[in-house]
Amino acid sequence: MTRIAIDAMGGDHAPHEIVAGAVWAASEYNVPIELVGKQDQIERELEKIKRFGIKCTSPNVPYSRIRVDVDKLDIKITHASEVIEMGEAPGQAIRKKKKSSIVLAVDAVATGSSQAVVAAGSTGAAMAASLFGLGRLPGIERPAIATTLPTMKKPVILIDAGANSNCTPQMLLQFAIMGASFVRGIWGNENPRIGILNIGEEAGKGNELAQSAYKLFEENQDKVNFIGNIEGKELFLGNCDVVVCDGFVGNVALKSIEGSSSMLFQMIKQEFKKDFFSMVIGMLAKPAMKRIFKRINYEEFGGALLLGVKGITVISHGASKAYAIKNAVRVAKEAVETEVNKKISEFYEG
Amino acid sequence: MTRIAIDAMGGDHAPHEIVAGAVWAASEYNVPIELVGKQDQIERELEKIKRFGIKCTSPNVPYSRIRVDVDKLDIKITHASEVIEMGEAPGQAIRKKKKSSIVLAVDAVATGSSQAVVAAGSTGAAMAASLFGLGRLPGIERPAIATTLPTMKKPVILIDAGANSNCTPQMLLQFAIMGASFVRGIWGNENPRIGILNIGEEAGKGNELAQSAYKLFEENQDKVNFIGNIEGKELFLGNCDVVVCDGFVGNVALKSIEGSSSMLFQMIKQEFKKDFFSMVIGMLAKPAMKRIFKRINYEEFGGALLLGVKGITVISHGASKAYAIKNAVRVAKEAVETEVNKKISEFYEG
Repeated sequence: MTRIAIDAMGGDHAPHEIVAGAVWAASEYNVPIELVGKQDQIERELEKIKRFGIKCTSPNVPYSRIRVDVDKLDIKITHASEVIEMGEAPGQAIRKKKKSSIVLAVDAVATGSSQAVVAAGSTGAAMAASLFGLGRLPGIERPAIATTLPTMKKPVILIDAGANSNCTPQMLLQFAIMGASFVRGIWGNENPRIGILNIGEEAGKGNELAQSAYKLFEENQDKVNFIGNIEGKELFLGNCDVVVCDGFVGNVALKSIEGSSSMLFQMIKQEFKKDFFSMVIGMLAKPAMKRIFKRINYEEFGGALLLGVKGITVISHGASKAYAIKNAVRVAKEAVETEVNKKISEFYEG
Repeated sequence: MTRIAIDAMGGDHAPHEIVAGAVWAASEYNVPIELVGKQDQIERELEKIKRFGIKCTSPNVPYSRIRVDVDKLDIKITHASEVIEMGEAPGQAIRKKKKSSIVLAVDAVATGSSQAVVAAGSTGAAMAASLFGLGRLPGIERPAIATTLPTMKKPVILIDAGANSNCTPQMLLQFAIMGASFVRGIWGNENPRIGILNIGEEAGKGNELAQSAYKLFEENQDKVNFIGNIEGKELFLGNCDVVVCDGFVGNVALKSIEGSSSMLFQMIKQEFKKDFFSMVIGMLAKPAMKRIFKRINYEEFGGALLLGVKGITVISHGASKAYAIKNAVRVAKEAVETEVNKKISEFYEG
């Protein structure tokens, strides 16, 4: 049975929210979990959950406290004496801290004790640990981060969302193949439409990388269902399933979107606090606003998948609370069960 | 006196909305204008304005029809027999169509008949015409597009927003100097804070360009008030005055922001149409929503400035209507009067 390892010490709200989310997932999806981190802290968190249940603050959940029978769940604890902090250089940190929670969580996958890892701590450390601990899939030069973005229609996968700042056209083609395999597995979409993130529709648009990638994608129409360039504003129309770019551009786009959306919600809050009349309207409009927030709430997607390593690594937002972690475990479980990696390998082993 | 040339044939709503915006600006800012385009069409538009006034659909304006005494305004018409269409290759088009409205509008600045040009047509054609027609400022390798973005505090300048897909660190430094000169002139901010758009705060983050630019900016602290890397989500906090990046990244970020904001507003509209009760709340909430839209409405900023050419070129959104064009003329006038180009040149000649 699929067991999911969770770095219990990673993220702004670790270990409290991480353990809560993992236990929640174990209960809701009936999936065995492996909590990796400081044993005493994890046990204390489990005790708290036994006594008080899981407190949930997500707007996407209609109830605020979830009762879970912890003793009936399949929960394994693996002690890790060290923790990699956010500021540390990833490569150095994973070599120096061999007993850190993220390194041991990845080890759990490498040794077969678990089948996937969920990490909300340093993205760099999770990537480095996965790359060195699990190795690359055949045919893949560099793993990439696949993030799910909400659109007006179905969600779209943006790959690479930040793993590789400097890319080659060949790498972008690999990202496309990995992203398509992911969409096929998770959403059952057999022929995902692939686009290149660019600043115009025509083949000659964009920087050197985008131009060369366009040609390469056209030559490989048998491997990818390439539909051409996609501009930033088209990202949200939902007319494409996988949008490919280098990790620098992808990460800037992702965070700019995050920043502007958060500004809009803050402005809405400000407007509805202006005077008594606005406050009343604000209260009436709150359910509608909540429904919108739910549609675009990253917590719903749980985390991004690091594709291209021999194993499944789900990278969650550093700010993740229990609900996001629960969904990240779901994503990890689905990725294992739909055999995303096998689908990627089939492309290269044919 | 400052005269502003306007490409009357450029943009999705040309010539109707362009002529209307130009006339409106002439009346509101008491600025002479030069309308460049097909004479008969421009004259017909002016006749319409004389009879019916200017119709304004912008949510940023409380009235919908503006009466203007066209005969009392200083309006010059320069006939242009050709128009460059959106799909044409910019370099070729400006060489082939020497009598096109954008080429002749730039010519008007080159010959001193006007002091700045406003263009809402093909951005590529406006850039190419400006570069070849006006030439570069000394010390500047490539002109760049400076766009104004709203934030929670003061607006921020993003440069380059799309002129140069492939950049060197030296070019980014020039963009910073140009952006700072612009902020100094327009907002009277004597020591603008400069940041590099990147995917992390530390010096070692990002792609090769961002890393080299970081070093170069540090070595040139006497020229630019460099405050370090700025992540996409920090763009909207208003803690920086000028954010520098290559034109590919800048354009992707800009359009992604545009796309996600437009999705959010569409979702809000959908939610407020769900049922009768939602519609009533939606009607009550409309004024607040309008106020928010006004704060982030690009029409308010009028257009982006092409910096680095010997002259002033304001590039407006292709979808610009009268109100946006009026504001673009204001931006052009301010850029001329605050001597942005002289300020840039002083850096290199001083």
